[in-house]
Amino acid sequence: MSDLWRDPTATTDERVADLVGRMTVAEKVKQLQGIWWLDPDAGGMAPMLRETMGQLPPWEEVIADGLGQLTRTFGTGPLEPRDGLKIAGERQRDVMAANRFGIPALAHEECLTGVAVWRATIYPSPLCWAATFDPVIVERMGSQIAASMRSLGVHQGLAPVLDVVRDLRWGRVEETLGEDPFLVGLVGSAYVRGLESGGVVATLKHFMGYSASRAGRNLGPVSIGPRELADVFLPPFEMALRAGARSVMNSYNDLDGVPSAADAGLLTTLLRDRLGFTGTVAADYFSVAFLHSLHHVADSPTQAARLALQAGIDVELPSTNAFGEPLLKGIADGVVDEALVDRALTRVLRQKCELGLLDPGWAPEEPVDVDLDPPEFRALALDLARRSVVLLANDGTLPLHEGARVAVVGPRADTSHAMLGCYSFPLHVLVHHQDVEAGLEIRTVREALSDTFDVSYALGCPVLGGDDADIEAAVATAAAADVCVAVLGDQAGLFGKGTSGEGCDVADLRLPGRQEELLEALLATGTPVVAVLLVGRPYDLSRQAARLAGLVCGFFPGEEGARAIADVLDGTVNPSGRLPVSFPGAGDAQPSTYLASTLGQLTDVSVVDPTALYPFGHGLSYASATWGPVSASGSQWDTDGTCEVEVELANDAERAVSEVVQVYLHDPCASVVRPVQQLVAVSRVDLQPGERTRVRFTLHADLTSFTGHDLARIVEPGAVELRVGASSADIRAVLPQELVGPVRRVGTDRELVPSVTLQTL
Amino acid sequence: MSDLWRDPTATTDERVADLVGRMTVAEKVKQLQGIWWLDPDAGGMAPMLRETMGQLPPWEEVIADGLGQLTRTFGTGPLEPRDGLKIAGERQRDVMAANRFGIPALAHEECLTGVAVWRATIYPSPLCWAATFDPVIVERMGSQIAASMRSLGVHQGLAPVLDVVRDLRWGRVEETLGEDPFLVGLVGSAYVRGLESGGVVATLKHFMGYSASRAGRNLGPVSIGPRELADVFLPPFEMALRAGARSVMNSYNDLDGVPSAADAGLLTTLLRDRLGFTGTVAADYFSVAFLHSLHHVADSPTQAARLALQAGIDVELPSTNAFGEPLLKGIADGVVDEALVDRALTRVLRQKCELGLLDPGWAPEEPVDVDLDPPEFRALALDLARRSVVLLANDGTLPLHEGARVAVVGPRADTSHAMLGCYSFPLHVLVHHQDVEAGLEIRTVREALSDTFDVSYALGCPVLGGDDADIEAAVATAAAADVCVAVLGDQAGLFGKGTSGEGCDVADLRLPGRQEELLEALLATGTPVVAVLLVGRPYDLSRQAARLAGLVCGFFPGEEGARAIADVLDGTVNPSGRLPVSFPGAGDAQPSTYLASTLGQLTDVSVVDPTALYPFGHGLSYASATWGPVSASGSQWDTDGTCEVEVELANDAERAVSEVVQVYLHDPCASVVRPVQQLVAVSRVDLQPGERTRVRFTLHADLTSFTGHDLARIVEPGAVELRVGASSADIRAVLPQELVGPVRRVGTDRELVPSVTLQTL
Repeated sequence: MSDLWRDPTATTDERVADLVGRMTVAEKVKQLQGIWWLDPDAGGMAPMLRETMGQLPPWEEVIADGLGQLTRTFGTGPLEPRDGLKIAGERQRDVMAANRFGIPALAHEECLTGVAVWRATIYPSPLCWAATFDPVIVERMGSQIAASMRSLGVHQGLAPVLDVVRDLRWGRVEETLGEDPFLVGLVGSAYVRGLESGGVVATLKHFMGYSASRAGRNLGPVSIGPRELADVFLPPFEMALRAGARSVMNSYNDLDGVPSAADAGLLTTLLRDRLGFTGTVAADYFSVAFLHSLHHVADSPTQAARLALQAGIDVELPSTNAFGEPLLKGIADGVVDEALVDRALTRVLRQKCELGLLDPGWAPEEPVDVDLDPPEFRALALDLARRSVVLLANDGTLPLHEGARVAVVGPRADTSHAMLGCYSFPLHVLVHHQDVEAGLEIRTVREALSDTFDVSYALGCPVLGGDDADIEAAVATAAAADVCVAVLGDQAGLFGKGTSGEGCDVADLRLPGRQEELLEALLATGTPVVAVLLVGRPYDLSRQAARLAGLVCGFFPGEEGARAIADVLDGTVNPSGRLPVSFPGAGDAQPSTYLASTLGQLTDVSVVDPTALYPFGHGLSYASATWGPVSASGSQWDTDGTCEVEVELANDAERAVSEVVQVYLHDPCASVVRPVQQLVAVSRVDLQPGERTRVRFTLHADLTSFTGHDLARIVEPGAVELRVGASSADIRAVLPQELVGPVRRVGTDRELVPSVTLQTL
Repeated sequence: MSDLWRDPTATTDERVADLVGRMTVAEKVKQLQGIWWLDPDAGGMAPMLRETMGQLPPWEEVIADGLGQLTRTFGTGPLEPRDGLKIAGERQRDVMAANRFGIPALAHEECLTGVAVWRATIYPSPLCWAATFDPVIVERMGSQIAASMRSLGVHQGLAPVLDVVRDLRWGRVEETLGEDPFLVGLVGSAYVRGLESGGVVATLKHFMGYSASRAGRNLGPVSIGPRELADVFLPPFEMALRAGARSVMNSYNDLDGVPSAADAGLLTTLLRDRLGFTGTVAADYFSVAFLHSLHHVADSPTQAARLALQAGIDVELPSTNAFGEPLLKGIADGVVDEALVDRALTRVLRQKCELGLLDPGWAPEEPVDVDLDPPEFRALALDLARRSVVLLANDGTLPLHEGARVAVVGPRADTSHAMLGCYSFPLHVLVHHQDVEAGLEIRTVREALSDTFDVSYALGCPVLGGDDADIEAAVATAAAADVCVAVLGDQAGLFGKGTSGEGCDVADLRLPGRQEELLEALLATGTPVVAVLLVGRPYDLSRQAARLAGLVCGFFPGEEGARAIADVLDGTVNPSGRLPVSFPGAGDAQPSTYLASTLGQLTDVSVVDPTALYPFGHGLSYASATWGPVSASGSQWDTDGTCEVEVELANDAERAVSEVVQVYLHDPCASVVRPVQQLVAVSRVDLQPGERTRVRFTLHADLTSFTGHDLARIVEPGAVELRVGASSADIRAVLPQELVGPVRRVGTDRELVPSVTLQTL
């Protein structure tokens, strides 16, 4: 091979420049396009998406002159991996044969709770990852997901979701890592490291502001100012970019009137010029077309393509209609600068080059049997789920005593679906095709509890709807038992086919359907009621909480979730999850955030009380660590210096315990309004009986920085407090500190994460 | 009098400069302070306010060296005007005697629904003014209010409220003019013209963003970006400043982290440098202190005072503790520049000079009997109320037929309070002192209907709470009647003592207490039910609307409100009010606005449907105008030009009719995301039987302008539509237009209001 671009010994820059120089305009534009080729077995789409997708040209035309991306080749149906590999291989060979250079497509799949392919491990959903407060296990999960994807010939995964929760009504809360930017960034970065270290391109989404849509409605306009954007929404992306993410996806929303997909300030000035990002920006599905059809900032498909390209979108997903003809027409008409195409093309080819797709001899994976759910993956899925279950309340009923007659009731008690978030593959199948519950090897809570207890069962009511007779039957079942475990929650789904998930927003935070009524009826029996929530968002339990014997939140715990829940209920596992997002109190005022300023929390200026029922970071255990001294290295801190905080923990119990040590910053006075407290450091500490550990955090003053008056990030001298505790509402020690020195401007190279060391004593 | 500052023949500038030069620092600072001197009979305050107010020094100390403002001298109790005048006069004489110059204080009162003084006319609340779509009558009301205030020696009124509604949960929705910036500005300007032409200083509040507080909670943080601020929140202030308002009040909230009271960008750069405002900026009560105590952007009272003064606050209200000692200390310590004091002082003294307070021989009003509620005021209050009542739905039951046996039920049916908003004086008395219903000469709906009909009555339930027996009694009453009029709604109040009003925010939009249950029980009787809403905000009637025989919204219609409601119910008056704020549909998604973009309205991307039950501008009549041709002067329009729109209306009915001709702008494609439609012109047209009128609007291209990418206001060439109709959802004609020419930057001198001419044919 004499071509420079083919030469693996040449630099990426040289190879890409050479290749760009050889390409026709048509070949260039094709590299910026994806195709979502819906095989007959891939089945239907929601009407709106089908309409947006439009009529696809013949396959030969799609791949003529090459192709940038293959979108979700493994489909949305129950396709065996071997069959999927066969299709994927054929497509890649077609693509290679149809362009002069023989360049294959880059293949992407969704991978939020594992690669979104039939028979792959379904890990717990992101709220569970965040609830572990354990980046280590999340990184391991990322590595496993990457391994699966590599074995399928998939190069890019469309995860993680780094949107910071601001409104619990939003359907996609379940896809997030909660309401704290530091925690989102910490756990999201771990996922990225896992994926990227496994050779798969991680895609950070959604850049930016998506979670703050008006009234929590999907795709709604976002009203936030530049300071909130910089201090709340941006930090997780900064952290995850440093972890090596090579792709970023724009958000659908407009932000103060400018759609992200057309926002050069966001996608180029901020992301590339300031943060130094060199990877690709991939369009969220259809968002280039939406500039014309929904945002109405473009008067034609060509203008939409031009705006997106100019703003900094490099890859148009999922299909060809927004960057194909429209862009070619724009170039032909002289309204689109070919240099912009080259800019995007260079990024795309650089990534292909780095992935080896330009190397001689590259070939797609062979259609072999692959086990996408091997025992070690299932074991990790179980471990992660166990570490994520949050015990919100317990009057001593938990763990359930041996031999108890347990009434297991509720719409989520005996269905595999209850374990799955909206991006878990079987729910995609459910939405697009048919109910596949029968084919799932996923146990239910009822089944898992039946291993240990004498279990009776009643549905009570479906997630939505239901009739009085079923509720009465559940009441009778509960009344005859020693304890009632009510498994309540969401049916995750997409496009409104569910109570949680994309498009499944809610108007208020009452439990869906008649579930609150069911819960009240169960409570009225006098049998102690333990509620287990399998939910995509916190709900308002304020009216029942005080009467519950126990309250357990599992979010969507994945394929081993039922066992993890049962392990917590029967005491096999000492619960250790902590809330990454607050449970609302009676005020139920949305939007909400624990990162509220004083006036965002004050209860005597409004009759609507925003106080959380269960605050951020909260979670109980059956046995807990004993806290020893908490100390700081000093009481003064240079505005460019560091501070060390030490906590000693001991396990004086007779079983393993876990503590999540949380350090919050309180800034009593600043030049702009600040949250009363915000998380700046955290460490999950697992202790065997008798074990003692010293946790040392080294916090850089950068962690106290915020966006000041002139929108520059600064560290400001003055008093701060470090509040060290077991939750945002359970502070064990307050360490007053004084930052000294001049106001310091902080660059994008600022310290984002404190270092943490654990020393066994 | 040889002093230049005393010389009425000198210019204001000369007089003020002379006086400033003569003053000591202590004298200067005193001119920037107000005092809320709580007479024993002024009674209690909400605990938070009392605490914030702190211990007041002795009166002699308060007035030593002069005093800037007297805060609400007429108190919050049922003080006879003559007695109030006596107290006010004594205070002024004390103030004059205690400073070397003999300068009196400037006196201010609240005046939102009439001067907030015992025995003064209580006009309908602002939502009613806006519902008339009639600036002419609102200006007349403003003039009457000014006359009352002048007769009491009051110089400044703390109204109107120009906050644009963004969240119906907010307690202060009742104080606003609705959700459309143009309508808010149009009606608010009319009020300002009335007040200012009567010689009273109008105070525009709240500058800015207050109505967009998080989750609608009072004083909550505001997340909006600069474009939304400029395009939605600012225009009413621009319009009202042009109408001659001489004072502006800051908002309590922070906006993207910067409290308005400390925001020089807002209070100086925008308000003065760009908009050319030369009057005074008055602090909303306690908001200077809040910079230290609640916003935590100042580490001491002195710093709070410095920040506020520097930002551009000239007058500290309501009392002395935030600008007094703290400012003197700051000047003494060299941390506050005396030049900033002089800047504010100059503005304050200029206003006093213009009001004649520096002229020789000025004396306070004598304590005489004044009639604050003369027949012509009551007549206007009635006329305004009649023009504001909105008939939302009618199955033909209305008007009630003669001789009908009418069951009048509901918590708002037989109370004077139902007519009053939270700033109506008797409700201040109620909150601070005692229930004064007995002393009010305000009829109830029950009383007013009893003039015409055979009325039976039952309470049903109180506004909040209640018992089954009362509901059953109401059901029995309704069942025995021909028709049931259910008068439902709010108890307005302050500080949480009510269901609407300052601090009386709500978590959802269900009718308060058991009122929805009462309504359902009444509907179940089979007797036709007409619901009358006396409310501070729209509520969610989506579950009942289709079953109601009629639905009438009166908001808080003031002291003649019961008669106006009865007049509509019995057909004496042909209802003509139109909604200045949408009634929510079942989705009940807040925050909300009819000014939504496509993605803010789309129903197939979220299961939460934001479609209004009754949209902005909606209102029915018993007889309506006949619409003739609607035409435009052409189909092209220069980006610096004008367009004329003509509508012909005829009254072919046998009674007087009113039509509110509404012109909406639809911009199908713009460089930033735009609302699908927004009001740009409106005219209320009253027609006697047989009358024909031609309405001609002359719209300048400035009315199509918006804030573009670089945050400059522009008129953009391209297609627009003018949609002419009877409500935002009842468009009678669509006029496609093309704006031609270059993109044009628009200054702060832009055209804000189209000219409207009515020609009788």
